[in-house]
Amino acid sequence: MNEHKGRILGIDPGTNLMGFAILDTFQNDLKVETIGVLNLKKLDDHQEKLREIFLQTQDLIEQYRPDIMAIEAPFFGKNVQSMLKLGRAQGVVIAAAILLGLEIHEYSPKKIKLSITGNGNAAKEQVAAMLCQILKITINQKHLDSSDALAVAVCHYNQNSGNKIGGKRYSGWASFVTDNKDRLK
Amino acid sequence: MNEHKGRILGIDPGTNLMGFAILDTFQNDLKVETIGVLNLKKLDDHQEKLREIFLQTQDLIEQYRPDIMAIEAPFFGKNVQSMLKLGRAQGVVIAAAILLGLEIHEYSPKKIKLSITGNGNAAKEQVAAMLCQILKITINQKHLDSSDALAVAVCHYNQNSGNKIGGKRYSGWASFVTDNKDRLK
Repeated sequence: MNEHKGRILGIDPGTNLMGFAILDTFQNDLKVETIGVLNLKKLDDHQEKLREIFLQTQDLIEQYRPDIMAIEAPFFGKNVQSMLKLGRAQGVVIAAAILLGLEIHEYSPKKIKLSITGNGNAAKEQVAAMLCQILKITINQKHLDSSDALAVAVCHYNQNSGNKIGGKRYSGWASFVTDNKDRLK
Repeated sequence: MNEHKGRILGIDPGTNLMGFAILDTFQNDLKVETIGVLNLKKLDDHQEKLREIFLQTQDLIEQYRPDIMAIEAPFFGKNVQSMLKLGRAQGVVIAAAILLGLEIHEYSPKKIKLSITGNGNAAKEQVAAMLCQILKITINQKHLDSSDALAVAVCHYNQNSGNKIGGKRYSGWASFVTDNKDRLK
């Protein structure tokens, strides 16, 4: 029996786009329940964006009832202005998780990339390609912005599970490429 | 009749100390309902600090039922790390206010100082001394960390009221000193 172990909400917070993914974890498998992007570009006011992030995160939690939230949390950024905005977006996402009783785990972009591809400096497309392989899904252009959210959820699973995911665990991009020449044109 | 107009929650968010103040506004007067500091230094974990800020802000709102939250919101800081932490602290405070239906207003430190003392570069002690004069209170050493929270609440009142507060409205620190020589040793 492939026992259902838990449900992870992966979030890549931002004030223009917020990626989200719900990942079901089983004894020997992972299944993507949903994946998407909250587009905040249409909202001019920074406070309105925070309100939308807070309410939508609550909605996601109430709809899918995950046990754990894993967020991508960069600790470095271009400048103090962008980091303040990012910190605020992270803050309201964290508040929604506290409010609804989720465990919260944070991972740096480097750690996420390393966990998924074996390379801490992997490109976004490499991470997305590896996720497609691991999870047997297709990430199309529309969903590319949410691949980081899915990546952080898978990263959390990898950190907290003795199981390999999707059969072979690739040690890096090079070995993935070797085994998947037909998938990479 | 000195009609009660509303109640403002002033917050100076931070991840080591969070100042807070509750200010009652009347037709021709202001009254400090409470003032204090949430000390977060004892908590090692950044996530625990955010949890405490979020829960304590909710408690303050539920206990005192303010209509409006005014927060001090610096837009510049020493470095990206400190701004990210500050942004997160602001984020959870903002989330608590959204959750409990408060209007949220933000003021920069410069605007607050200008509003209280007439000088956008006034020292913390100058702001505190002016608040003592305006509100007929004593701000002791213990409460000095919360004076910025009280200041942002008074700033909001000043921005949204045609009334003078505490009789004479000083145009600056110089005129305050001239009129209050005995208060300043």
